[in-house]
Formats: sequence, structure tokens, C-alpha cells
Amino acid sequence: MNPIIAKSARVRSTPFTQRIEEYGVQAYTVYNHMLLPASFHGVVDDCNHLKNHVQIWDVSVERQVQIEGPDADYLTQLITCRDLSQAKDHICYYAPIVDDQGKILNDPLVMKVKPNTWWVSIADTDVLLYAKGIAIGKNLDVNITEPNVNPLAVQGPKSFELMKRVFGEEILNLKFFNFKRYAFNNHEFLIARSGWSKQGGFEIYVDHDEIGVQLYDQLLSEGKDLGARPGCPNLIERIESGLLSYGNDMDMNDTPLECGLDAFVSFNPDIDYLGKEVLEKQQQQGVSRSLVGMMMDLKEISVTQHLPIMNGQNKIGTLRSACYSPDFGKCLGIAMVDKTHQTLDQDLKLQINGIEISAKMTNLPFTK
Amino acid sequence: MNPIIAKSARVRSTPFTQRIEEYGVQAYTVYNHMLLPASFHGVVDDCNHLKNHVQIWDVSVERQVQIEGPDADYLTQLITCRDLSQAKDHICYYAPIVDDQGKILNDPLVMKVKPNTWWVSIADTDVLLYAKGIAIGKNLDVNITEPNVNPLAVQGPKSFELMKRVFGEEILNLKFFNFKRYAFNNHEFLIARSGWSKQGGFEIYVDHDEIGVQLYDQLLSEGKDLGARPGCPNLIERIESGLLSYGNDMDMNDTPLECGLDAFVSFNPDIDYLGKEVLEKQQQQGVSRSLVGMMMDLKEISVTQHLPIMNGQNKIGTLRSACYSPDFGKCLGIAMVDKTHQTLDQDLKLQINGIEISAKMTNLPFTK
Repeated sequence: MNPIIAKSARVRSTPFTQRIEEYGVQAYTVYNHMLLPASFHGVVDDCNHLKNHVQIWDVSVERQVQIEGPDADYLTQLITCRDLSQAKDHICYYAPIVDDQGKILNDPLVMKVKPNTWWVSIADTDVLLYAKGIAIGKNLDVNITEPNVNPLAVQGPKSFELMKRVFGEEILNLKFFNFKRYAFNNHEFLIARSGWSKQGGFEIYVDHDEIGVQLYDQLLSEGKDLGARPGCPNLIERIESGLLSYGNDMDMNDTPLECGLDAFVSFNPDIDYLGKEVLEKQQQQGVSRSLVGMMMDLKEISVTQHLPIMNGQNKIGTLRSACYSPDFGKCLGIAMVDKTHQTLDQDLKLQINGIEISAKMTNLPFTK
Repeated sequence: MNPIIAKSARVRSTPFTQRIEEYGVQAYTVYNHMLLPASFHGVVDDCNHLKNHVQIWDVSVERQVQIEGPDADYLTQLITCRDLSQAKDHICYYAPIVDDQGKILNDPLVMKVKPNTWWVSIADTDVLLYAKGIAIGKNLDVNITEPNVNPLAVQGPKSFELMKRVFGEEILNLKFFNFKRYAFNNHEFLIARSGWSKQGGFEIYVDHDEIGVQLYDQLLSEGKDLGARPGCPNLIERIESGLLSYGNDMDMNDTPLECGLDAFVSFNPDIDYLGKEVLEKQQQQGVSRSLVGMMMDLKEISVTQHLPIMNGQNKIGTLRSACYSPDFGKCLGIAMVDKTHQTLDQDLKLQINGIEISAKMTNLPFTK
């Protein structure tokens, strides 16, 4: 028997929770102290649908930490290893949040929504408290808040057609990881071409509950012939696509370089951020472990904690998330593995959770 | 249909999760990125049992933020409005965590476990990130970590007899909110006489997974004739007892004074903490709203968000948690109500969630 989720005000509902439940959400997880749907028709069915049609996701849990004020640019740059010095007001930046040891504390999208005003669209840790702590400690002139913004994602190959119907032709000009404001029912919503799948789509930053629910309904009704239905971030699709999940694949014991996020770690001498020296040193010496893909000859797997991976007597790393992929006909996973034991694309016999498994390490994302 | 909980490594399991599930946990919530059981036999049955027998609770979610180092005393005092200057190494301090505006960010128990080493036993926000931010901002010499400590609570009137059987007669000398180390299977566990019920009991800070599970089994087997069974913090019991829940009854928009925590707000001129001036001013002027108990003539209620309370045309406050109490024969709740509209112990007609309700405001805890 699967335990149900106990609800309370602490585990916040969203403006769309009532709709989600009317549409028969089967499972929830909790993310940023808020309900995140995890399944509507089962993870496999949801995955197939996402790859072929269009889904509307209640991702209100992507909370915005708003940093505004004269020191907002300084503080936002200080907490991320991504170079934001040239940040444009229409581009989303994937920007790992780091501490003074170069460890990763979150992996948000960051947007400069106005001069001196940033939105940090966070994964599942209280970045607001971290930013507030630093601002207090350094006596910075900033105001740090969580605005009432509840994103909806429109994901899947038919998301473009659907968004065109609702917001007009113009939205098709929006480039990947760009954002712009578009009107619906006389309200302008910030919309980005982004989302936590590789099937294409948009994220709508809903800052008006009532019009947001009207938009939710409109998206589903306009998308009826496109097969539009409620969905949610999908375990299978995100692992196949190599999309990392903070709290699963990486946590505050890892650095961005160990997580393969080198492209988002700046060594520009003109910018300053926490842990930069540590990361510079690690970059020069090379990491001793990193994330790899794992293909495993198994028909099912469930990872609810980091599982040690043994190669004979050697513990070579930990498996951090995994699922059975019908498209690959095997289990796929993401693992942190010691560099000395990384033998990509070779047939291996490994022991995971006490079970002997035929497996292969690969680069991410997975390719057939 | 009640949605199930979706598990992953991000929503961490505990050393006791396997046991909990063998014993048939019915519902989970998530707290500090970890699974917290919410029901075993239904909230009413669990409540009656708790009031009459003894329960073993997996409250691993009470994570410890360990602050150690030369500046640990300074930092720990800085983030709480409780006076810790005379803190003893065997006493638990309920110590609201505050920001520079005097807002409450968490309401942990704080223990000085060694010289220059504190455990902050947190409610459901990432105090570790807040403390880290301030330490970085102020360049403090501290090490802030989350040790592998997974508390078990032993709660209920028969908890004293059970703990005596497992740890020996000596444990009965432990005074309320004191802590001390006691041996089990040659391992010393820090044990406090504390817990999130008013039925009496202990919290065992389990810092050894394997011996911890042995202890869990031993408590259940030694307590068989006492009716010992797995349990969890109980919605009904905690509301009846007036135990506040961070994230439900209070959040970062409230001050400790508004939450009735005056006894834990120090104005000792010799200590310094964040937001002290703001709280001093609020203390002098008096708060404009505060938490009160609500007794409502209703047979059931479910609060999954703060519900506006109307008195005619006036919005007088918000209902933050509530349950039906079989012992009181009505619904009890905790509400933040404007001082000008507080009319304690009078019969009122209020509108909550669009429903007209006969209600009474009272002091906490509730009395019949």
C-alpha cells in the first residue's frame, strides 16, 4: 500500500491545486514547501504523452526569490559562479548557487527582470534564507522577497501550436532561454522559452492567481484537439534527457565542476563570487569524481536514497537517480563516480544495492 | 481519491523508513526535505492512543544544524531572540530564529552540546543556509554542518515506564527540557526530556543508524504490554495542546511577539541579536495582531492554506490550522487575529471560507 500525502498549510497548495485534483492527480511530491504533482496517468503513460503532445504543468514550486535594490546586482553575482556581468533583461541564465567552498546549494534559472531586480527561480532549497543571511552579514542594501508568482509550464512538441493559439503568432519568435511579456485577458505575463523537459516548451510566470486559472483552463480547452492534458516533470523523460535534479543528482556536498556544469562556472578575472578560488583550484587540478550516465540491464529500479555502486571490492560511486526507460528497454540512471573508475561505454559487472548488474557508464544525455 | 506520495532521494528516507512502512504508515508529509509519518491508524485513533499509552516516533526530520568553532557562540546568539548568554550544557532552549526585521524564520530547540558547539534542532526551513549566509557575510570562524542525527521521540504517559526499562531507572531523574547522555548497546545517545506533544516523553538523538534501528525495535518489544506502537506528531493533540507549527501557524511574515512567544524574546541590554531594535519597538507599542485559539461549532474542517476570517464586512484575521477534536466535540484552530477584533470567550458569528460559523476566541492551550 502506498502512503498518501498529508496536506496542511505548511505544505502549500497552489492556485491550480483544485484544478489538478479535479483532473485526477495520482501522486504528489513536495518541493520548496509546496505541492508538486508527480503523476497523472502513471509515469510511463505521462512520458509517452509528453513526447508526442502537449502538457500543462503546475510548477508553482519553482518559487522566485526576488532580489532588488542598489546592491542587487552585487549580491546576485556573489552567490553564483555564472558570469552575470553582461546579463540581458530578456535572457534566462542557468546559474548554480555556491557557497564559500564552491559547493552547490541550488541550480536556479536567474533572470534580470528589471534594472536592479532579479528573479532567482529556484530548485528545492531555501535560497531566500541564504541570500538574506549574506545580505545581513554584509549589510547590503537589498530587499529579498518571495513574490506571489506561480509558474505554469507548457511542454511537449505541440506546445508551440498551443501557445500560438493562446498568445498569438508573435510568441513563436521567442528564442530558447529568452523571455518576454505577453498579454492574456489584459494581463501581461512574463513568459520564457524554457522548461524542465527536452520536448520543447514555455514557462509562464503567473503573477495573478485569478487570471492564471483562466489561462490554465484556456490552455486546456484550446489544446483539446492537440491532446493537451495536465502533466508534471517526468522522471523518465528528465533522466533520458540528462536533466539534473538538485537534491537527487547533486547536493551541497558537490561542486558544479563535479556535476559537469563547467560551462556555467566563470573564471573571468573581472567578476567575484563565493568559492571562486576553490573552484579555480579544482579546475586546474581536475575533479576526482563526476556525474555520469548509467545504463543498467534491469527491468525496474527505484532509488529513494543514494545507492553505493561497487565494482568488486571497490566502492566506485553512488547511484543518485534512476528509472526504467521503455524506449531504451533498460534502466537509466545518473551516478557520481570516481574518475579513476570511470570506464565509459564498456560492459561492466557492478553491484548496486547488493545486486549484480550488467551496466555501462555513458555521457549525458543518453543516446541509443 | 487521495494522491500518494512520490518518493525520491531528494525527499530523504530515514534510518527507520523501512520499519515505519512495515508497520503500515498510512500517510506522509515532507519536512526538511525528508519523510515525516503523518498517520498510522488515522489521526483520531492515533491521538487517543497517544494520550493513553506510548508511541515511538520517527522524527528524523528534526534535523540538527551544527554550529561549531570559535565564533559559534556569537553566531548562534545573533540569529535568535532568546538569551543564550547563560546557556547550560544540559538544557534545551526553545529559541526563535529571527531576521534583521525581527521576523521569525524557524522555531528550533537549541542545545549547547559541547563548548563552542551548538545543535539547532530545526523546524521546516533551511536554517543551515541562513546561518551559512551570515557566517560568510560576516567572515566568521565557524563550521556549519548537518550531522547524521535522526531523532526518535518516545511520547505518551507510559513513555517514562518504557524508557526506564530500556535505559534504566536513572533516566527518570531527567528534568523537563534537560538533556544528558545514556547508553544503549554500548553506544551513548543524547536524550532530552522533550517532544512535540503535551503527553510527556523523550527525544533520543540517534547518531548511529544501526544501533538506532536496534533501539527502535527494542523500544517496541519492551513496550508491548504498555501498548507501545509507532506514531507521529498528531494534528489533534498538538492543536489541543496549543503547540505551534512553523509554516502553519507562523511564518516569515510574523514576529515572535505576534506569535505569543514573548517569554523567548530577550531585551537584555548585554546581548545582541538581529532585529532586536524592531522587536523592542514592537514590544513597547504592543502588537497589532496575535495568535489566538478558535473553538468552532463544526464537525469537520481541513485547513490547507491560511483561511480569511470575516466578522461581517471586516476581515479580522486568518485561520492557520484546525482539526475536529473528539474530546472537545468541536473544531479547534489557531488563528492570527487583529487585536482590535479580539473578543476572547464571547460567542461570535464568523465567516470562514464562506461558511457562517458559531465560534469563540480563546487563549492557548485550549481548556474545556
